[in-house]
Amino acid sequence: MSPIGNYTGRQSINPDRATKMAEHSLSDDEFEKQEAELTEALLDAQYELRKSIKGPVLVLISGNDAAGKAELLYRFYDWLDNRFLVTRAFALPEGVEQRMPHLWRYWISLPGPDKLGFYLGSWYHQPQMCRVRGDISAEAFEQQMEEIRRFEQLLVNEGVALLKLWLEVEPGEGSSSAPEVPTDVAMREWGDFSQADREQLERVTRRMMTLTSTPEAPWIRVPSADPNYRDIEVGRLVLEQIRALRNKTERRSPPPPLAPAPRSVLQQIDYGLRLGKEEYGEQLARYQQELRALIRRPDFAGRSLLLVFEGTDAAGKGGAIRRITRCLDPRYLRVHGTRAPTEEEAHQPYLLRFWRRVPTPGRVAIFDRSYYGRVLVERVEKLTPVDRWQQAYAEINDFEAQLQAAGTIVVKFWLAISEQEQLKRFQARERSPLKRYKLTDEDWRNRERWSDYEQALDDMVAHTSTAAAPWHIVPAENKRYARVEVLRLLCQRLREAL
Amino acid sequence: MSPIGNYTGRQSINPDRATKMAEHSLSDDEFEKQEAELTEALLDAQYELRKSIKGPVLVLISGNDAAGKAELLYRFYDWLDNRFLVTRAFALPEGVEQRMPHLWRYWISLPGPDKLGFYLGSWYHQPQMCRVRGDISAEAFEQQMEEIRRFEQLLVNEGVALLKLWLEVEPGEGSSSAPEVPTDVAMREWGDFSQADREQLERVTRRMMTLTSTPEAPWIRVPSADPNYRDIEVGRLVLEQIRALRNKTERRSPPPPLAPAPRSVLQQIDYGLRLGKEEYGEQLARYQQELRALIRRPDFAGRSLLLVFEGTDAAGKGGAIRRITRCLDPRYLRVHGTRAPTEEEAHQPYLLRFWRRVPTPGRVAIFDRSYYGRVLVERVEKLTPVDRWQQAYAEINDFEAQLQAAGTIVVKFWLAISEQEQLKRFQARERSPLKRYKLTDEDWRNRERWSDYEQALDDMVAHTSTAAAPWHIVPAENKRYARVEVLRLLCQRLREAL
Repeated sequence: MSPIGNYTGRQSINPDRATKMAEHSLSDDEFEKQEAELTEALLDAQYELRKSIKGPVLVLISGNDAAGKAELLYRFYDWLDNRFLVTRAFALPEGVEQRMPHLWRYWISLPGPDKLGFYLGSWYHQPQMCRVRGDISAEAFEQQMEEIRRFEQLLVNEGVALLKLWLEVEPGEGSSSAPEVPTDVAMREWGDFSQADREQLERVTRRMMTLTSTPEAPWIRVPSADPNYRDIEVGRLVLEQIRALRNKTERRSPPPPLAPAPRSVLQQIDYGLRLGKEEYGEQLARYQQELRALIRRPDFAGRSLLLVFEGTDAAGKGGAIRRITRCLDPRYLRVHGTRAPTEEEAHQPYLLRFWRRVPTPGRVAIFDRSYYGRVLVERVEKLTPVDRWQQAYAEINDFEAQLQAAGTIVVKFWLAISEQEQLKRFQARERSPLKRYKLTDEDWRNRERWSDYEQALDDMVAHTSTAAAPWHIVPAENKRYARVEVLRLLCQRLREAL
Repeated sequence: MSPIGNYTGRQSINPDRATKMAEHSLSDDEFEKQEAELTEALLDAQYELRKSIKGPVLVLISGNDAAGKAELLYRFYDWLDNRFLVTRAFALPEGVEQRMPHLWRYWISLPGPDKLGFYLGSWYHQPQMCRVRGDISAEAFEQQMEEIRRFEQLLVNEGVALLKLWLEVEPGEGSSSAPEVPTDVAMREWGDFSQADREQLERVTRRMMTLTSTPEAPWIRVPSADPNYRDIEVGRLVLEQIRALRNKTERRSPPPPLAPAPRSVLQQIDYGLRLGKEEYGEQLARYQQELRALIRRPDFAGRSLLLVFEGTDAAGKGGAIRRITRCLDPRYLRVHGTRAPTEEEAHQPYLLRFWRRVPTPGRVAIFDRSYYGRVLVERVEKLTPVDRWQQAYAEINDFEAQLQAAGTIVVKFWLAISEQEQLKRFQARERSPLKRYKLTDEDWRNRERWSDYEQALDDMVAHTSTAAAPWHIVPAENKRYARVEVLRLLCQRLREAL
């Protein structure tokens, strides 16, 4: 359990501060004294954060209208190095945001790992407001809270620190000084609230806190009637949060119990499946024509397509992809080769770079290798701790489910060749001036780990082949067969989905 | 002059290809033979490009409606590794694009240095269309062509390769096979053209080519009636362009003649200017109040503010910036600390990361150090060749002028302290636990280059202090004076501009 709060959503009590907190106010003199110490400690901590780039630290500032959220923010801009502060404010989704998964806009705007990010109107704002207004049912609200809970769990597991603050003033109380800026976007939208609305808001807020207060990311209520008390208290919480990050990587949760899947996927493959040249030509033309027609259907304009290609090295992913891209409008298509993360990417949650590449409505994204690297190469090469890649199965399922709920069609292919065929292709590549560059030392090393990859594949298929996004295992010993089979399966999935 | 074209805008003639080109067509057999060789060479070249990350290569595809631009694009998606291809298409500007400089959307979407980017509807499309429709005057058109010419020059100087193709079919000719996709965005908008419009288009196009064909980035007409001929020809041009990139860095243009400015800026400074504590409090409050009021004026919503802070190390930039941020709404503010470019940024045009950070309407961006690093640290530390930092004065003036034309208010401060004062502050920092981290070995080294920096400052002020964006040199020996002076000048500039 985090030292800075408990997960029942009640105000955090720290014994040695209990007396002070009973009062919830600070004289100006006391404030100035504490401010000097606190600022020094905060600047030091901020400097540590920048050096270690183990972040970011996200501070969600919610609360009553008169609680002084803007004032509080100014205080931090005064105290800290502004170059490493960012403020995010989200109103209701607009334009393309409305047609993407709820969490998309929060994902793609995640601050870099050396930053302290303040959120006015965070991912809680929209569901909260919609629920108060009755635009969504209680079930939908609970469902969104569950999505958020898992989103935050993933962020915390990936090294992001979350501080969720509810600034509280009792009715009739109120911050003494008038705020220097208009209240934040979120609050402006609450403007014309009736008393009944306000009571409903209080109920929704309590429910929200109950559902989303976890040991790793508890909600903390901060009595905010006195700005001096409020600012020092929040400053302390931020300080503790940054310091906690430093000792973070040592704590590893035990991996969830996960039985290895039986070896089966590759053993059930019929490597003998072939297609003659003539048959190939005919069927290729037929499915390409169908694919073109499907993608141009008016109902595709509101949908999008995410294609994932994984497979044995040298299985012919590139060739299969080209047979598809030929049918698509290059302006609405992106093919993403997934390489080892850059240094910057390595310091960020692994799904971030894929969230940034998901297709918007009417578009197609093809991943030539993908986020499944987490449970393949990162597992086999031990680049990621056991608990993290094991948790990734559920995280990836969540990711794909969110995309699908927003209208994306997710189609996943594994192209499989036998060990002997791979050897033949590697040797051919060594001889070919045109293909030599495709072969690296890493390819030979991966080959030595054949059995490890086989287990990783079996587990991956067992855990991530969902009803809405099943894995298609395609024998690719014969390239012609594989290319046509990929196109055939793709057309079939699109036909069903549209 | 580039080997692949001349700058009069006429079709490129290469003696050994002249015979073939006279015909401008290829039989299917001949095509297949040449295609095999060409593809191999292109894949190799693409691989080289990826390894060397000396790019990107941008291919602008313009031309008549029936010239088969989409078909050509498909061919390249077939031939090359799709993971390193991107296609950009720009229609008329929408939303915030309309309120930003013309070139902003092209800047911020520039492909990475390992990419081959195809542009359907490039930066030429909008001015061309507006001119044909009579929405802009001939003068405005020429002005935009000049902006483009300098934009392309900068890109080429920074290592980007540009291939500008005009696919041409004579009236009555036309690509034999029907295109598989709708014609591109650009062309769709030309739809309801009268004969008079078409003649005007031809005139505008000729003028466009004359104005923007330069030795480094000539327009090349490609006879496109025969798709076989067209695709092989374009493939060859792309190949030559990629190969030319490889040998690029060796050629350096001689630096423009540039007399060093007389030593003056720092010598004219009155380091004795001071402000008492009480006066400081009064004036600070007064200007902060004025700044808040100015930024909240409704007419600021359509403008934006770019603040540049440069100055001697330890001159107190951070403190001055905090006195400003205190008055601004954090949601519409970003403070950007400029550090050495990341590896990825170092392979891209230096202005790119600043273009990506310019404020959109209603917003404020503060650069704590900035693109002026090009003519300061990069010059003094010899990180950039002489010709490139000398050209940067004009490039930076262009950059700021484009921002200003779109409504951005650009305000630039140099905070100056004496050598003795700097030494005192460095020593104080060494003693202070709170400020120790602010002092690095680099700071001491910069101090040894005091005189070099002084010359760089004098030259910078001489070349980039423009009427619309003058440098404000602020004595900062007394922090109180400097902070108030910065605020006073900022308010004054805003008052004049709004």
